[in-house]
Amino acid sequence: MGEFDLIARYFTRPVRRAALGVGDDCALLRVEAGMQLAVSSDMLVAGRHFFEDVDPRHLGHKSLAVNLSDLAASGAKPLAFTLALSLPSVDEHWLQGFSQGLLALADQHGCELVGGDTTQGPLNICITIFGEVPPGQALLRSGARVGDDIWVSGTLGDARLALDAMLGKVHLPPDLFKVARQRLECPTPRVALGLALRGIASSALDVSDGLLGDLSHILKQSLAGAEIDAEAVLQTMQARQSGLSLPDDLWCQCVLAGGDDYELAFTAPAGAREHVLAAAHSAQTRVTRIGRVTEGQGIRLVDARGQPLARQRWNSFDHFA
Amino acid sequence: MGEFDLIARYFTRPVRRAALGVGDDCALLRVEAGMQLAVSSDMLVAGRHFFEDVDPRHLGHKSLAVNLSDLAASGAKPLAFTLALSLPSVDEHWLQGFSQGLLALADQHGCELVGGDTTQGPLNICITIFGEVPPGQALLRSGARVGDDIWVSGTLGDARLALDAMLGKVHLPPDLFKVARQRLECPTPRVALGLALRGIASSALDVSDGLLGDLSHILKQSLAGAEIDAEAVLQTMQARQSGLSLPDDLWCQCVLAGGDDYELAFTAPAGAREHVLAAAHSAQTRVTRIGRVTEGQGIRLVDARGQPLARQRWNSFDHFA
Repeated sequence: MGEFDLIARYFTRPVRRAALGVGDDCALLRVEAGMQLAVSSDMLVAGRHFFEDVDPRHLGHKSLAVNLSDLAASGAKPLAFTLALSLPSVDEHWLQGFSQGLLALADQHGCELVGGDTTQGPLNICITIFGEVPPGQALLRSGARVGDDIWVSGTLGDARLALDAMLGKVHLPPDLFKVARQRLECPTPRVALGLALRGIASSALDVSDGLLGDLSHILKQSLAGAEIDAEAVLQTMQARQSGLSLPDDLWCQCVLAGGDDYELAFTAPAGAREHVLAAAHSAQTRVTRIGRVTEGQGIRLVDARGQPLARQRWNSFDHFA
Repeated sequence: MGEFDLIARYFTRPVRRAALGVGDDCALLRVEAGMQLAVSSDMLVAGRHFFEDVDPRHLGHKSLAVNLSDLAASGAKPLAFTLALSLPSVDEHWLQGFSQGLLALADQHGCELVGGDTTQGPLNICITIFGEVPPGQALLRSGARVGDDIWVSGTLGDARLALDAMLGKVHLPPDLFKVARQRLECPTPRVALGLALRGIASSALDVSDGLLGDLSHILKQSLAGAEIDAEAVLQTMQARQSGLSLPDDLWCQCVLAGGDDYELAFTAPAGAREHVLAAAHSAQTRVTRIGRVTEGQGIRLVDARGQPLARQRWNSFDHFA
């Protein structure tokens, strides 16, 4: 199958909102008058971001989910995306699963595939996504203020636990492994929550490299520090509720520095707690208050009684560390 | 050097037109009211689209040039782009050269780098570019009409000749090789010409995979055939003027099916010849009339006297052929 047949069979569908989709030199998008365009690119590499033998349907889902998660973190409404794909060979089974997983999630969010590129090479998936947001309403990393609450959505740490299990570092009961693996391979982008938090959250980002490392981006850009209730964060982890016994270090590593969570971490004024909870309710997404923004620099971990914990160096996952 | 330092050092510059650049979950772009957004993605893979040891400055230039060429083919004005980069390792010499070549061309076109991604993996460069175009004025592949002239910009075939020389298939005198190699490694995107052809050209695309193969996309989408004066096309090749003696087959292969030209092929009504020439003059870009759109299907090659040539199968370069 040639490049053009491949695109026609798996990645071409009638355009809905776009003015022109796959098949010309450029796609053409309509952007509603007065809206800003939010743009993000993510590149996923086999062996680094996913196992080469992962279910292609899950991979298709995740490839778009990580990009939708960036729009969510900006409070932007998904519009469209491009897909550039480097494939070692044409594997129709793989392409069918990948495109189904990808397009099913795209449909859920009304986000259409408008163009891209395919080529032969080591497996690499690069998606660039477009959303729209009214000027001044995007959620930025730089808006946290001293005294703001710090919140996270959903559950943290389970994706990393699944990864550790797949790498043989930890043994999980089958049911728990299944749940955790779902979090690793099929994350849920918090798009509805990001939209609901416009005008409420003072800053936001998505947790992709580990909570503490990612949170430090907000703190650096907002020129502030933070106090984080480690126990409150630990309680967000699904596996923690299972009765499973693991070393404390491992729990903390997963939940504080695990990565691949694709949850939102955000700040909001303490006076806006009711609004945050109402936004979470409307988005049908659980949120947990895990700390507050402080003067100074860096993150201090505290226990449930607010007492300082000796913090290990939880290095965020850095792609060239 | 970590991922964030790498981005800060080589790929972060103050935003000009964008509302928000590198460093948040999304970049934010302003799109002028009423304009459509033209979007294109290209992925370049080491060993397939370029030699791993190519001058990184040239590679930076070419990576953006191929995307600017897609905007040119749509008649869109460049706005901004994202860069996703997979690197085997952090090589500062390479990064410096690559970013300089990339950003120098970006500056020439007022096209700013607003975001992207970096990761570790086999060398892979994915750029997504954004431009704007008034609704209804984009140049499409589908607009050619029977009787239209067929034109190409600039010179064709020299990039392929350089590639053949680098692969040891042909020997070129040093001066000629230098000129041809410049065409292969540093193509000039015809952005000004694309803009000048709005309202004049009936269809357009950029020649990246070889003239005949690319032209067939216009013809299929326009439900037409074409007659091409092979000799007129051959005369566009720079090397053809050098007195170099090569087999006829090789000349034809380079110019008709070579690829990597990044010139525009376009159609325009025969009555618009003066307008085409004026547009080319204003864009300071040479154009050559090479044929006409006909009834039926497929491309017929004719000689300078309009007599049919026995056409070999000039397969366009297909990435999965």
